[in-house]
Amino acid sequence: MSESQEKPAPLRVGIVLFPGFQALDVFGPVDCINILSCSHSVTLALISSTLEPVTTKSPAFANAIGQSVVPTHTFATAPSLDLLFVPGGLGTRGSSPVIEEAILYIRNVYPQLRYLITVCTGSGLAARAGVLDGKRATTNKMAWVETTGLAGNVDWVPRARWVVDGNVWSSSGVSAGIDATLAWIQEVYGREVARKISNGIEYTRHEDPSHDPFAELYGL
Amino acid sequence: MSESQEKPAPLRVGIVLFPGFQALDVFGPVDCINILSCSHSVTLALISSTLEPVTTKSPAFANAIGQSVVPTHTFATAPSLDLLFVPGGLGTRGSSPVIEEAILYIRNVYPQLRYLITVCTGSGLAARAGVLDGKRATTNKMAWVETTGLAGNVDWVPRARWVVDGNVWSSSGVSAGIDATLAWIQEVYGREVARKISNGIEYTRHEDPSHDPFAELYGL
Repeated sequence: MSESQEKPAPLRVGIVLFPGFQALDVFGPVDCINILSCSHSVTLALISSTLEPVTTKSPAFANAIGQSVVPTHTFATAPSLDLLFVPGGLGTRGSSPVIEEAILYIRNVYPQLRYLITVCTGSGLAARAGVLDGKRATTNKMAWVETTGLAGNVDWVPRARWVVDGNVWSSSGVSAGIDATLAWIQEVYGREVARKISNGIEYTRHEDPSHDPFAELYGL
Repeated sequence: MSESQEKPAPLRVGIVLFPGFQALDVFGPVDCINILSCSHSVTLALISSTLEPVTTKSPAFANAIGQSVVPTHTFATAPSLDLLFVPGGLGTRGSSPVIEEAILYIRNVYPQLRYLITVCTGSGLAARAGVLDGKRATTNKMAWVETTGLAGNVDWVPRARWVVDGNVWSSSGVSAGIDATLAWIQEVYGREVARKISNGIEYTRHEDPSHDPFAELYGL
């Protein structure tokens, strides 16, 4: 393929990582993007406070197992992005230097983004960054009270697999991030591209963003 | 909690990693085990040929993005295991020193395992290791012909979300690994434990192992 003017610009994707991120919050969405990158131009930055591997293990569960993922950039060296993913997990709860850095990064980078996708309690970090102020958003249903209590200026939607408001896509808990990401891919790249990816991972999508049996399950 | 004789032995879990593993093949199942480990004793070994981070990126797609995960053990130093996961991905195709090492490891360790769970084309590695000889098993439906051609002594089941034969659980492609793992957790830890984990990740399980719209989609 020649380097013609028609060659589309790559999609520049970033993912925020912090200790205690939920593994599937990251790797459900990112594996959809991995497959997208086999046919479309994509760059990826895995962003944390340092370049040391980041564990999924939360300090709150000393005996739990974890996996460590290698960042490619720090919050200070992160490149310009089109799309930022903010995952959730036990690591979003409370405060720590890396969480405060992540919140500051989200606040500063948001005006330059084309899209923000939060997964699970990642919306709590976006809320604390102020970027959900005045917006509709959703989050993990089991952690609903705790997460929605973090910011009063968000119009939290209790019954939703995912919510889109402007350029912010917020998903419900964990696996809902896959549906939100496939919906985002459909919006930006078209239905056929999204269909190929969901078929490739043998995933039967929830295509209705209001489909949410977990809202009822958790009494919302 | 006292260290009484009644304390159950930990579940010793291992996962084989190789360049070009499919991210969701690992992190769908392992995130279920991560959550299990918050309430039950679990140890985890991430096993590859060296301790260098292992990328999801396949050499076959030079422009694709990838993420790197840090192993905890090599094939030579891996501890005794109860349960081994073998993921799939483009990295399983063809041959390479690490894939040959992985196949040899699977062949040697299988007699000591209590359970083997293969995800997606991971069943191709297990087949090449000979541990599926005479057994019923399934695999990724898009990669069906290529994967089932690897070993003639396997009774490949085309229409299955997952298949159990003896102590081997084999899943269909990628996201099917979540259903197989939750079914395995239900078998070993009970329905309530599996239910809590699937609700925790807001995942609506496929509980019927013969449910497989992708078999038809791919003409099987």
